[in-house]
Amino acid sequence: MNLVLLFESDFINEKKVRLAGRRYNHILKVLKAKEGDPFTVGLAGGKIGKGEVTEINDKFLELNVSLEKEPPQPLPITLVMAVPRPKVLRRVIQSACTMGVKRIILINAYRVEKSFWQSPVLTEEKLHEQLVLGLEQACDTIMPEIEMFKLFKPFVEDVLPSMIEGTNPLVAHPYTKDSCPSNPEGHITLAVGPEGGFIQYEVDKLIECGFKPVHLGERILRVESAVPALISKLTY
Amino acid sequence: MNLVLLFESDFINEKKVRLAGRRYNHILKVLKAKEGDPFTVGLAGGKIGKGEVTEINDKFLELNVSLEKEPPQPLPITLVMAVPRPKVLRRVIQSACTMGVKRIILINAYRVEKSFWQSPVLTEEKLHEQLVLGLEQACDTIMPEIEMFKLFKPFVEDVLPSMIEGTNPLVAHPYTKDSCPSNPEGHITLAVGPEGGFIQYEVDKLIECGFKPVHLGERILRVESAVPALISKLTY
Repeated sequence: MNLVLLFESDFINEKKVRLAGRRYNHILKVLKAKEGDPFTVGLAGGKIGKGEVTEINDKFLELNVSLEKEPPQPLPITLVMAVPRPKVLRRVIQSACTMGVKRIILINAYRVEKSFWQSPVLTEEKLHEQLVLGLEQACDTIMPEIEMFKLFKPFVEDVLPSMIEGTNPLVAHPYTKDSCPSNPEGHITLAVGPEGGFIQYEVDKLIECGFKPVHLGERILRVESAVPALISKLTY
Repeated sequence: MNLVLLFESDFINEKKVRLAGRRYNHILKVLKAKEGDPFTVGLAGGKIGKGEVTEINDKFLELNVSLEKEPPQPLPITLVMAVPRPKVLRRVIQSACTMGVKRIILINAYRVEKSFWQSPVLTEEKLHEQLVLGLEQACDTIMPEIEMFKLFKPFVEDVLPSMIEGTNPLVAHPYTKDSCPSNPEGHITLAVGPEGGFIQYEVDKLIECGFKPVHLGERILRVESAVPALISKLTY
């Protein structure tokens, strides 16, 4: 937790927040706060600043906060990702959020196991938890948006064409001739397949839609390494 | 498992291997092999080729193998990493191996908890398991070397100077002015701090040794995202 993420509902007056629950526990037990200690805080969707502990008791703590600085710029990238195993999904959502991705589209693909869609990790509440952890790690305040499409073909045919308009659409695909470009201009739409990869039909549909297949070298990476590696190469 | 990694001890004659245990189970249950099915195989430290299942019984399976192709080129990077939490370490070791790093140096730092050094993850056997999984994922055969140094100061003063000779030594550090270069020339020695980062004394010692601090943007990444992001930016 490099930043304590605050919500409007935490404010008890214009300058003071009261925290209980997870953040209270973390600030006390991990960050070992005492009265007077300063912390980096940020308002979800808003500015970043300083918070100073004014009171700690056994139920909650209070911070005086002043918010001054804009959060970091969002990355110019939309991540379109086939749903991986739940525990991998949790990590990848959090790491994409930490890296600065602000729009994540979760889609189906042939090699996505049906059971993955039933996972509690995909509930709004659990995704929100991962995004909060991602923003707290990154020192960012702008919550990414996550959308889900459970049918591949209608998504690619009906939704994706307008989604990629004005962007540079790339699909990560190990068996292709062009390598992933380094920091290309403009906004990127990056499609990443499931564990085991997109099948050829899916790659062909994406190419037909306007995507260019790009690889990251001969080695085949797991989703959780491929996503940070691609984001870094494309936008860092 | 994109490649079945073979060892000399698996060979029952010049062209045939017999597999039991983990690989046998994986080939049968996950890859659902039948007699005659072809697989990508590679000899640890040697070439890559094809294996064809010639026999399956309830104890082992046999493959006829032919090895023809050289493994992918190693990445021109040495990773010097402060030991993270055991479960993170396991993932990072595997992902660095999958990406093509061939030399990994695990070191101590102020923010490395002493208990991490007692973890079974750091035994030769457990590290070897992660490296095998990494190579099988990557379709590579060259086993990385892992070295460990449990004292920071003697390592930086006595070992590191000769280790970085002829390389481009960089230390990832979020609070610095220069950003991480994209694909610089030559071999890189990349130092990555523990969770929570190197303390200033440690960064200063690395700078004194010849390292240049570089950042990956304003956002602070977790070790497991930072390592693939840095490797990708520096060498992919």
